[in-house]
Amino acid sequence: MKDTYIRERSAIQANNPILIEGLPGLGLVGKIAIRYLVKRLKAQKFAYLYSPHFPYFVLVNKKGKVRLLRGAFYYVKGSEGQNDVILFTGDSQSQTIVGQYDIAEKLLTFAKKHNVQAIVTIGGYRMETQGKPKVVVAGTSQAVIDCALKAGAMVSSAGSPIVGTAGLILGLAPFRKINALCLLGETRGYLPDPLSARSVIEVIKSMFDLDVDLSGIDEEVGKAEKMVVRLQKIEQNRATQSEETRKEEDKKTTYIS
Amino acid sequence: MKDTYIRERSAIQANNPILIEGLPGLGLVGKIAIRYLVKRLKAQKFAYLYSPHFPYFVLVNKKGKVRLLRGAFYYVKGSEGQNDVILFTGDSQSQTIVGQYDIAEKLLTFAKKHNVQAIVTIGGYRMETQGKPKVVVAGTSQAVIDCALKAGAMVSSAGSPIVGTAGLILGLAPFRKINALCLLGETRGYLPDPLSARSVIEVIKSMFDLDVDLSGIDEEVGKAEKMVVRLQKIEQNRATQSEETRKEEDKKTTYIS
Amino acid sequence: MKDTYIRERSAIQANNPILIEGLPGLGLVGKIAIRYLVKRLKAQKFAYLYSPHFPYFVLVNKKGKVRLLRGAFYYVKGSEGQNDVILFTGDSQSQTIVGQYDIAEKLLTFAKKHNVQAIVTIGGYRMETQGKPKVVVAGTSQAVIDCALKAGAMVSSAGSPIVGTAGLILGLAPFRKINALCLLGETRGYLPDPLSARSVIEVIKSMFDLDVDLSGIDEEVGKAEKMVVRLQKIEQNRATQSEETRKEEDKKTTYIS
Amino acid sequence: MKDTYIRERSAIQANNPILIEGLPGLGLVGKIAIRYLVKRLKAQKFAYLYSPHFPYFVLVNKKGKVRLLRGAFYYVKGSEGQNDVILFTGDSQSQTIVGQYDIAEKLLTFAKKHNVQAIVTIGGYRMETQGKPKVVVAGTSQAVIDCALKAGAMVSSAGSPIVGTAGLILGLAPFRKINALCLLGETRGYLPDPLSARSVIEVIKSMFDLDVDLSGIDEEVGKAEKMVVRLQKIEQNRATQSEETRKEEDKKTTYIS
Repeated sequence: MKDTYIRERSAIQANNPILIEGLPGLGLVGKIAIRYLVKRLKAQKFAYLYSPHFPYFVLVNKKGKVRLLRGAFYYVKGSEGQNDVILFTGDSQSQTIVGQYDIAEKLLTFAKKHNVQAIVTIGGYRMETQGKPKVVVAGTSQAVIDCALKAGAMVSSAGSPIVGTAGLILGLAPFRKINALCLLGETRGYLPDPLSARSVIEVIKSMFDLDVDLSGIDEEVGKAEKMVVRLQKIEQNRATQSEETRKEEDKKTTYIS
Repeated sequence: MKDTYIRERSAIQANNPILIEGLPGLGLVGKIAIRYLVKRLKAQKFAYLYSPHFPYFVLVNKKGKVRLLRGAFYYVKGSEGQNDVILFTGDSQSQTIVGQYDIAEKLLTFAKKHNVQAIVTIGGYRMETQGKPKVVVAGTSQAVIDCALKAGAMVSSAGSPIVGTAGLILGLAPFRKINALCLLGETRGYLPDPLSARSVIEVIKSMFDLDVDLSGIDEEVGKAEKMVVRLQKIEQNRATQSEETRKEEDKKTTYIS
Repeated sequence: MKDTYIRERSAIQANNPILIEGLPGLGLVGKIAIRYLVKRLKAQKFAYLYSPHFPYFVLVNKKGKVRLLRGAFYYVKGSEGQNDVILFTGDSQSQTIVGQYDIAEKLLTFAKKHNVQAIVTIGGYRMETQGKPKVVVAGTSQAVIDCALKAGAMVSSAGSPIVGTAGLILGLAPFRKINALCLLGETRGYLPDPLSARSVIEVIKSMFDLDVDLSGIDEEVGKAEKMVVRLQKIEQNRATQSEETRKEEDKKTTYIS
Repeated sequence: MKDTYIRERSAIQANNPILIEGLPGLGLVGKIAIRYLVKRLKAQKFAYLYSPHFPYFVLVNKKGKVRLLRGAFYYVKGSEGQNDVILFTGDSQSQTIVGQYDIAEKLLTFAKKHNVQAIVTIGGYRMETQGKPKVVVAGTSQAVIDCALKAGAMVSSAGSPIVGTAGLILGLAPFRKINALCLLGETRGYLPDPLSARSVIEVIKSMFDLDVDLSGIDEEVGKAEKMVVRLQKIEQNRATQSEETRKEEDKKTTYIS
């Protein structure tokens, strides 16, 4: 695997779909939003994205089953008058600069192949706010920005850059003549933030007239808090292990050589 | 986008042009100088340079419009007896070593294609000086150095290296048989330094007999100071966001996987 | 050498072999285990793996003989009713992310070529335990995990990621339709840990009905302790030298230029 | 320039030459030795090596003349009964791992093309010794090691690794069937060390029966001390500039975008 590539496990016949992307990032806003949409829309997984620019470890589930880091695409047929939807999320962002551009390009090629009409990318936007998180929009044209504004998003006066895949997709989309916009949910960013994801989904729901029940995401808030405790324990182990492995490798190279 | 590439939006018929380059660097001397020249010479944007070696984020303007990091080329027809001029500046330097060489090469190929007669690169030169900033010259031949000396530049006895695109263009230009020189404006380098850019433009003006009114750059000094305040706020946000995104990615990878 | 490649020094006719891999990592568990198996099974070295993603130094033995960092493959014919075995260990892990994926891929291509039936990778698993180190299993299918469980391994409830070649082989193996499992010996990880390697070998011995006498590994514990002292001295020298070389390069570049 | 490449400025007809290499490293032992040999043997420069893996800056001399970082090859015809000699030194080591392997490979391809019979690489070996620096040898075969031992070198019992081009050439030479050895002069490594270089040249002189007057190198010791003062000043400037450039780039990216 010298390059990022996408493997389609089952063929889909998408009808002018929209693609909604959310990889891990600030407050995990994008990933939480996509996962919630997958669940509520009962979207079907149909393709994976693999990349040698992801971190060099694999994940193990509780039963000991291993899998590579990856991105996953899900498909849901729209009801009468709605767009079909392709959802994309994954385990990680690219770890290299060149890989970031590569992954964004591969996603756009994939979108073009499936005749995607518009792309929505989701991220977090760091803000120390109280109350309901706002949603900031950025886009490839005034028209798509206006659509999001009507749906409740706002424009940020500060003009912050957008880091990672969510940003690069927008930067590269005009070369493929695809409209794209990014919705950034306000978040403090320290912890997984389902509340911020909720705000983003509300905008998407309104923009594309999606039939998504949002009550379930409140449970997620509760779950998130429990997972944080478990998470911290796991991650501490992993970080320690990874760090020590690196130290060992560095130090022990000549040992028993 | 696996490689740096240049996209020409409109065709130009340049007549033995000179190319003046100034990317962000110490004191932003090069970028400020090019921007000022673009404005005063009413130069027309005609091409962009994109690269997967630029940082992996996109810029958002106040209206929410997104664009990729890039370099931009501007063209201005010389009046009778003057050279045509191509100006180049951009958002960032390459973030990788190999990308630095790649971008310099692509600029030279572009220069060759447009029959560029000489290249001037602009940068900053760190010096704790008072008064009017001096301009240090370095070049690919004694002849081009002499031209700059006559126009008020000086040679640095210290023989400092020149870092980044401004330097590599000079290093690589002889292989393409293009004359090139670098003008480095003295600057403390902590803040955008229009005064240093002014000194550099004076040398260029004199060398190429350009019709540039320099009074406007004094306003820039005032503006620069105001922008610094705004800048610090924006950048603080971005840096924090970028840093936290990275932390999140690092920590949360196994969460909800 | 632009890519990782494997050079076979002598041809083998392996009969449905299993491949057991153990590169340096936490507690050197994998490397110690493979070396012990090579010795006890009298396995014959038959191929090397080289990579430009290994660290950029060479090893020198006591007589002054130099060699490149590398991985080595060993072959042993199974007795009646047992599998043939190919063993793999080496000096180092890849130093780049892309190299990590590249090396894992090359190992799988090699395994496919030799008709390998199953791959076992070995690593360390950080745990502050007393007594006999346990062995944690992860695998590409429930069937292979079950085999290891029957042989005394356990599943980790925490679901830790597996870093490096031992992990990526498992992540990539399904694409080649090869069964693979990883055995992680518990270790504190600070020092070479033959006790943990012993636990891993016990599981492998039982799984594949290998005829391996384990008494010898107890000597290794003693040896390891002595080597640690020597090691620390060598490594301190190397680290200092490497660090200072880098400093010199950085500082002295313009000197006598 | 996507790859390291060698440009020959004039054709040579070398008769079974030996190649002696010394890039910047610990105590600058290799570089000082090669430069001294070039001078004393009146060797003629005939080729350059360029690489996008060198640092991304250019050097400027006192007159303002710029040049790319590079390696340089020098040729000297041997007198009756002596080998022809090709000498190689340069401004820098590769800054990337992959580049280190690439440069070593390119040097070996070049050696093969010119029918080089043996390669000697030179480096420094960190040791807090008093008195005349010793020379440690490492090599691709016992025969070449023995030659160096007869000429006054010794074998290091510690078996230290050899970092960088001097080491990788030895690691890769056997694949090209070229004999190679490395001579490491003892040095504290903090400062350019002509005394250590002298010890290395003595061994080379004896091994290849070269007619080199060594008295001149004592002057170098004096010069080195003076240069160190100048050097520290230049380098401090460069390091500060480079560091600040990087900071500026990082911080100012969105400014005037």
